[in-house]
Amino acid sequence: MRFSGVFHPLVTPFAASGEVDAGAIARNATRLLSTPLAGLVVLGSNGESPQLDEDESDRVIAAVRDVVPADRPLLAGAARESTRATIAACRRAAALGVSAVMVRTPSFYKNMMTTDAFVRHYTEVADASPVPVLLYNVTVYTGVTLQAEAVGLLSRHPNIVGVKESGNDMQLLADYLSASAGEDFVVLCGSATSLFSALALGVHGAVLALSGIVPDKCVELRRLVSEGRYPEARALQTSLLPLARAIGVQHGVPALKAALAMIGFETGDPRPPLRPAPPAVLNTLRSQLTALGLLAEEPAPL
Amino acid sequence: MRFSGVFHPLVTPFAASGEVDAGAIARNATRLLSTPLAGLVVLGSNGESPQLDEDESDRVIAAVRDVVPADRPLLAGAARESTRATIAACRRAAALGVSAVMVRTPSFYKNMMTTDAFVRHYTEVADASPVPVLLYNVTVYTGVTLQAEAVGLLSRHPNIVGVKESGNDMQLLADYLSASAGEDFVVLCGSATSLFSALALGVHGAVLALSGIVPDKCVELRRLVSEGRYPEARALQTSLLPLARAIGVQHGVPALKAALAMIGFETGDPRPPLRPAPPAVLNTLRSQLTALGLLAEEPAPL
Amino acid sequence: MRFSGVFHPLVTPFAASGEVDAGAIARNATRLLSTPLAGLVVLGSNGESPQLDEDESDRVIAAVRDVVPADRPLLAGAARESTRATIAACRRAAALGVSAVMVRTPSFYKNMMTTDAFVRHYTEVADASPVPVLLYNVTVYTGVTLQAEAVGLLSRHPNIVGVKESGNDMQLLADYLSASAGEDFVVLCGSATSLFSALALGVHGAVLALSGIVPDKCVELRRLVSEGRYPEARALQTSLLPLARAIGVQHGVPALKAALAMIGFETGDPRPPLRPAPPAVLNTLRSQLTALGLLAEEPAPL
Amino acid sequence: MRFSGVFHPLVTPFAASGEVDAGAIARNATRLLSTPLAGLVVLGSNGESPQLDEDESDRVIAAVRDVVPADRPLLAGAARESTRATIAACRRAAALGVSAVMVRTPSFYKNMMTTDAFVRHYTEVADASPVPVLLYNVTVYTGVTLQAEAVGLLSRHPNIVGVKESGNDMQLLADYLSASAGEDFVVLCGSATSLFSALALGVHGAVLALSGIVPDKCVELRRLVSEGRYPEARALQTSLLPLARAIGVQHGVPALKAALAMIGFETGDPRPPLRPAPPAVLNTLRSQLTALGLLAEEPAPL
Repeated sequence: MRFSGVFHPLVTPFAASGEVDAGAIARNATRLLSTPLAGLVVLGSNGESPQLDEDESDRVIAAVRDVVPADRPLLAGAARESTRATIAACRRAAALGVSAVMVRTPSFYKNMMTTDAFVRHYTEVADASPVPVLLYNVTVYTGVTLQAEAVGLLSRHPNIVGVKESGNDMQLLADYLSASAGEDFVVLCGSATSLFSALALGVHGAVLALSGIVPDKCVELRRLVSEGRYPEARALQTSLLPLARAIGVQHGVPALKAALAMIGFETGDPRPPLRPAPPAVLNTLRSQLTALGLLAEEPAPL
Repeated sequence: MRFSGVFHPLVTPFAASGEVDAGAIARNATRLLSTPLAGLVVLGSNGESPQLDEDESDRVIAAVRDVVPADRPLLAGAARESTRATIAACRRAAALGVSAVMVRTPSFYKNMMTTDAFVRHYTEVADASPVPVLLYNVTVYTGVTLQAEAVGLLSRHPNIVGVKESGNDMQLLADYLSASAGEDFVVLCGSATSLFSALALGVHGAVLALSGIVPDKCVELRRLVSEGRYPEARALQTSLLPLARAIGVQHGVPALKAALAMIGFETGDPRPPLRPAPPAVLNTLRSQLTALGLLAEEPAPL
Repeated sequence: MRFSGVFHPLVTPFAASGEVDAGAIARNATRLLSTPLAGLVVLGSNGESPQLDEDESDRVIAAVRDVVPADRPLLAGAARESTRATIAACRRAAALGVSAVMVRTPSFYKNMMTTDAFVRHYTEVADASPVPVLLYNVTVYTGVTLQAEAVGLLSRHPNIVGVKESGNDMQLLADYLSASAGEDFVVLCGSATSLFSALALGVHGAVLALSGIVPDKCVELRRLVSEGRYPEARALQTSLLPLARAIGVQHGVPALKAALAMIGFETGDPRPPLRPAPPAVLNTLRSQLTALGLLAEEPAPL
Repeated sequence: MRFSGVFHPLVTPFAASGEVDAGAIARNATRLLSTPLAGLVVLGSNGESPQLDEDESDRVIAAVRDVVPADRPLLAGAARESTRATIAACRRAAALGVSAVMVRTPSFYKNMMTTDAFVRHYTEVADASPVPVLLYNVTVYTGVTLQAEAVGLLSRHPNIVGVKESGNDMQLLADYLSASAGEDFVVLCGSATSLFSALALGVHGAVLALSGIVPDKCVELRRLVSEGRYPEARALQTSLLPLARAIGVQHGVPALKAALAMIGFETGDPRPPLRPAPPAVLNTLRSQLTALGLLAEEPAPL
């Protein structure tokens, strides 16, 4: 199984009580399985994984695994700060049936997170993980950057099958592509605001918050690029840019949850200290979804 | 109980197997109880708390609580990314008998961590915590900063009794001191490289890695400032500067563990992805400890 | 005259005495005029403009203007920190015959450089400049960023004809493209490491240090993209990536001057405090130029 | 002449026409000469020096030199991006009679500004300057930091007599103090928000925007520290903190000019792209000056 194509990182719905709503995430996943998305991701940054405890993390995986057929990739975030806790999380995720794990860089002790430290960390994790490992860099949240040199070295490990880079820096992405070795190693992008650029550059897939809202369009964008229909792809990208920006880092998980809820997904509020998106952001989202034909126009007041 | 004075944040010793060595941390704590330190802290940044799981965290608290007499403050780090997990950690720490909890700012979703979000988070935590709460800002590791305005508002909460600021920015520390209200609210500094400056500015105490190595000197420095003997205090600070710098952010937890081990504490290696301090750092530490009279001069080779 | 296509920002050659070598820059320019480059830029960041005084700046413009035919665009950097000095520099450059001026953002008083301040600054400059103005953002050197909102507003000014963005962030570039108005307004990229990405995204041209070394290849890359031959364009980009990285921000102007000198341009050393590229960088450059067929293989020692 | 004590960095007044008002700066200087300030600085960051051309810079020096007696130190900023332009500026300032020059770090090519580059730059400048040189670090504006190692090496140069550090980081200031050699070498601080801390740490003086508004209090604060009257010094610092913060980096030169104008100095507006301080800032300043007894209470409206 090669992890290319467009993936959606599911949000984690919370009930009014604040508890994880496992039924809701399973229903959200089921709805997305009828789209052309390549697969699903649980416990990513958009899934509020840093806010979940170990039991909750397991319940999220189990609930989604139940509804995702075996031939459809299901990835799970499994990063922890220590190498050993990361290994334990990978093993538990594997036991619960995920196809692969995505492992964000550890980042607390920032000035100690050298290329050497990252290479040792990921090598130990990949040696121990029963399922394939994807590296995961997201500088905007971690404050550290996995250098291309590390990606190059780690791409030679038989159990490391790809890397996700979440930013908009095409030099870094090009460096990842140049450095990585092996037919099956995939480079995935994580920012919908530069999706077209990343695809044109040759990334093999994407993990996109946006793809939960407009799965067909995201998959279509990838298809257009693969068919060399760049002007159409670019035009599609341009039409998606405002919404991509709003639910990306700008307004974050609260905006993503709000937008998904507007089109019928079950999300609940984000978990504190995250706050629900404020009214001004909701209005922006509503306009953007309406412009994309996902919400009906408000009837004019009489 | 007012949390002033000099505290030491204990490292977490690991056995060769990688397991937490609860006996070792209890012995380290016992040794430090015979010094004039005001109290001890477990599960701080220097205690590799982001690398410990919940059970390990509890075992560390329990082991140290066993040896710390009831009249000696024992603080425990209890931060998690979500408000509810933080509350749970505070409750568990309280049940294990800590005097107070230190709660580092949540920081993963950096651009969402506004003053408003912090005020709500800490208010909910303090409302629920059975023991007093100290706020804790450490920008170098978190990438976010708790503004003085938030400290001012939160200092009015009856269950928030202080704040620890870990950097060297005296404007921020002065702003914390100016903003905070209440006789009993303490402002603690966390950087030994600017200890004299912080004390001269009026902080009520300090949580210092350095104070495990030279507890008498750290306490003496505070006494000198409180007696107005600034030139002596400053000279003492100057003599401590190189070691303070080395075991502070520069070489971090690995250097602190190495220095403590050189003078007889049981520390073990740091937990990966942290690596043991490299030979060049060990040589530097050895020279610095020798210069402070804590290690014997190496005999000249025959 | 619309400022699309590939431009080269000339380095400023210095004689051994340290003086500007006006003859050398004219000869360098003449050599480049026989290539398919759209035009030339003087007094950019690569031209060490912050290191030149007003008289030297004028001499550089005059020397190059003398050899560039009237139908070939010649742009000149004309930024100063104050609005009035910028206006004066624009007027002098116009009097010397440049086709347009490129005006880097002022940046000294960073926290005062708001969108409002930038809009006023550029509006006053464009009102007064006898020749068209291109905005110029280069965050890596200035520490400030011209937001897309400002570009959108300023693109409506009749005398502001484009913007150059020097980084690799495709979200910012896409935002510039979306925000800017008018048929004739051009968005230019400035980083050869993401040239393909920027062209695929729709930028109208580029100002590239690399284009002095491989002008044909840079122009070819643009042509391939415009003809929809993306895979070929991408392959060409990949082949240029190592050199682009080396003479870009990584090793900077000293490396660019060294590489240009290796293939016969007259550059002299950079002006202190810049230092000539060190031997290790020279070796890297020599290998890269050899790999591109621009230098002969070193004969093996007998 | 040793450059200790409290200095004021004069703002550069502009006439309504936008021209430098040399008469006004001379009058402002004259007024300050009757205070206990050690001396004056022209062409600093607060003097909008990056906004002045060479002739204007010379006129500012000449105008102030005319009114400052020979036994009162007059420092002038003389930094340019290139070493040779810096040397030329130092020579011109010396010819105009300044006591010493303050030379801010060059900073445009940030990643090239290594300790080695700085040491060479300042050594060449100091070798050539007819008057003594003070190093000057202001990271908030330049984005680069002069490391203590460089200060240590340069402090051994016979024509380098001190360093000014403009931030609030007491570790950096302590490192400067520890690293610097020579009886006569002075370390000056530049931030009034941490003045007390810096003085307690042992700096020899300060260059403070605030000292134009409350010269007596700033000098008094230094005297209190030198007499070991720390609690009084600290209380004075606390009373000055709000105004120090407002006219420091927070609201910058526009706020400083506004505050000075409120108490009778001639300042004019800042030069664009800087804008005059907005009404909300003016109100804050007015309250702060009133609280310090420098402005009369507004009479209550009838």
